[in-house]
Amino acid sequence: MKPILEHARTLDLADPLAPFRERFVIEDPDLIYLDGNSLGRLPKASADLAQKLVRDAWGVRLIRSWNEGWLGAPERIGAKIAQLIGAAPDEVIVADSTTVNLFKLAVAALQAGRGRRRILSDDLNFPSDYYALQGVCELLDKGHRLERIPSEDGVYGPEAALEAALNEDTALLTLSHTVFKSGFVYDMKRLSEAAHAVGALTLWDLSHSVGSVMVDLNEAGADLAVGCSYKYLNGGPGAPAFLYVRRALQEQLGNPIPGWMGKADLFDFEPEYESAPGLRRFLTGTSPVLSTLLVEPGVDLLLEAGMARLREKSVKQTDYLIALADEYLAPLGFSLKSPRDASRRGSHVSLGHPQALGIDLAMIAENVIPDFRPPDNIRLGVAPLYTRFVDLFEAVARIQAVVQNGLHEAYMQETPTVT
Amino acid sequence: MKPILEHARTLDLADPLAPFRERFVIEDPDLIYLDGNSLGRLPKASADLAQKLVRDAWGVRLIRSWNEGWLGAPERIGAKIAQLIGAAPDEVIVADSTTVNLFKLAVAALQAGRGRRRILSDDLNFPSDYYALQGVCELLDKGHRLERIPSEDGVYGPEAALEAALNEDTALLTLSHTVFKSGFVYDMKRLSEAAHAVGALTLWDLSHSVGSVMVDLNEAGADLAVGCSYKYLNGGPGAPAFLYVRRALQEQLGNPIPGWMGKADLFDFEPEYESAPGLRRFLTGTSPVLSTLLVEPGVDLLLEAGMARLREKSVKQTDYLIALADEYLAPLGFSLKSPRDASRRGSHVSLGHPQALGIDLAMIAENVIPDFRPPDNIRLGVAPLYTRFVDLFEAVARIQAVVQNGLHEAYMQETPTVT
Repeated sequence: MKPILEHARTLDLADPLAPFRERFVIEDPDLIYLDGNSLGRLPKASADLAQKLVRDAWGVRLIRSWNEGWLGAPERIGAKIAQLIGAAPDEVIVADSTTVNLFKLAVAALQAGRGRRRILSDDLNFPSDYYALQGVCELLDKGHRLERIPSEDGVYGPEAALEAALNEDTALLTLSHTVFKSGFVYDMKRLSEAAHAVGALTLWDLSHSVGSVMVDLNEAGADLAVGCSYKYLNGGPGAPAFLYVRRALQEQLGNPIPGWMGKADLFDFEPEYESAPGLRRFLTGTSPVLSTLLVEPGVDLLLEAGMARLREKSVKQTDYLIALADEYLAPLGFSLKSPRDASRRGSHVSLGHPQALGIDLAMIAENVIPDFRPPDNIRLGVAPLYTRFVDLFEAVARIQAVVQNGLHEAYMQETPTVT
Repeated sequence: MKPILEHARTLDLADPLAPFRERFVIEDPDLIYLDGNSLGRLPKASADLAQKLVRDAWGVRLIRSWNEGWLGAPERIGAKIAQLIGAAPDEVIVADSTTVNLFKLAVAALQAGRGRRRILSDDLNFPSDYYALQGVCELLDKGHRLERIPSEDGVYGPEAALEAALNEDTALLTLSHTVFKSGFVYDMKRLSEAAHAVGALTLWDLSHSVGSVMVDLNEAGADLAVGCSYKYLNGGPGAPAFLYVRRALQEQLGNPIPGWMGKADLFDFEPEYESAPGLRRFLTGTSPVLSTLLVEPGVDLLLEAGMARLREKSVKQTDYLIALADEYLAPLGFSLKSPRDASRRGSHVSLGHPQALGIDLAMIAENVIPDFRPPDNIRLGVAPLYTRFVDLFEAVARIQAVVQNGLHEAYMQETPTVT
């Protein structure tokens, strides 16, 4: 059956999560925002909180606010994020950026690795992760190396090849749980078990998973994880990241960038460092308070909606989007660059096209915001808290019009920019 | 002459910077805030900007804002901070926390140190700096070590002893330019020259200097520096820090925590890292955008007032505060724990008292906010943009009343908290 607009309207009417859209600031009703996988929308509660944090907590209470909620924020908000990813409350803390956290945990894992020298990954991981891991290897400088197992098709993660490549010299297996380009989702439990079988630790980048797919770190036996709060968590631009360390490992691992916020007694100002118990040791300097506290309302919305319902809607929406693309876009030269199997797919759909960059830019001019990933991927992100089925229908209609009318041709010479 | 309130009023009337107080949000006229050396007050322009950043840039423009000011913010705001510290615009960038930046620059300096193993500091430095430096030594793990030269009196930095201790194995001399506890200010030029004479680099922590004392990094021949934006810069709680690398060194030093924001081409998503030219290479992950951009209005206020006028007022105010303390507080058991010589003193005055913690807490109850540093220091910070001479008079009157009436005795058992 050819998808029609009326069907999208019916799906929206039946959507139990539809009321959550009202909880976001949406000023341009014509804008179709399909980039919540890069920067989530602004919750109304965050706009209100920002005003209070600046005017009252900073402006009026000033330094006293440290004892009125700021100091405990990394742990308090971490405990909420933990509920979204199957971790205990004291296993997640908010800190720094995803890359800095990855650096800290990778160094900690390698130093606990009893002489093992090898970090194993794939070639679908987020490039910043490679840069940090390469930096770790150069810094430790004892023959440490990063090995990347290639994906066969650039879409699916090479799970079997990774399993086969694990060996007794592997200290760490590290992967993006949901791949940033294709949206492929790894089987975390299978790979964690395989890593543990050779005595390696696992470190998962959850940036494209948290708030979008079901993650159960404890159940999967994951050791370490990091993730981003400004995508599906709607934490605000560049909001601080989080990190997870399995409880049994917490007292065994040290922070390679020790700082006063991770010290056992923050207030004694003594020159000798002694790690705080638990995860607080992985803090370094003072957190950016406003950006940190603004993570909380977005997380609260996800907890209120519930991950099971969010995932159910996300699957329905990405299935629907793929059906639309098959019908209307495949004839125009688009190919699916995400798994067709919803159980292996995150909450974004990548479409390939030889003129992807020009199409991406023309779409933005038509008030549909996707993002572009070289060489030829257009990513369409579905955020079940605020994306409607009619948005997906209308987006595909506009993409179709862009290509049919050659609107993208004027943009073909442009340089890609961050989105 | 015994200081009297009328004199303070006269000084305020003659103060050319007095109008700047109106540029800050001050809701409680009775509050005497002497902790701008820990968390600066809220500029009215920052309150307005916060609203715009959240509602418009995040809420409405969404991902497009990256190309409408966010991406260039670390360099743009860094260039403004550079004007406050005698650096060229392309020698300062905003990034991470002070401790993380110190870690990055210390590793970079040691790796450029051609086998030198020694980091030299004093025992007056901010403890978090020691923790990070110790972390650096453990990580590089080739006999690297941190050596701390003791201060004779806990107030003055041991300049001569540091000069004598510099040797051919010293890779790095690192000090807080203005000491967090006593407020002592090092002679940056003298020590930089001494370090260079043995082939060592210098790394200055400017956290208590920037916006409070005259700093001329270029003129002093400083190599590296880091600093905090939430004290005298009024950048907001936990706002990101900055780092400085002398231009001639920039291409020689690498970031030990490489990440996508420091890559030459941010948008190619290639797995191999290539440093961006210049200072941008010292970025790692995505900056916390809101906390970063809110640094700008505070810096603008300092630039408008001018460092020369700010320093002139700061010296007058700390001199006045010391005169008040001599007259009214010394008889109650207080001692001066800052240099009496204004040319060696930053913008805060430390007073020692055997019951300092109780007095600190009682002062807060009396609506005067200082901070406490163990074992027995009360720090009184002067921020010339908004501190009045009458505030200093009134603060000392309230401290006097606290001690004379024994109001502090009820607080003597409390645990110190962050301020």
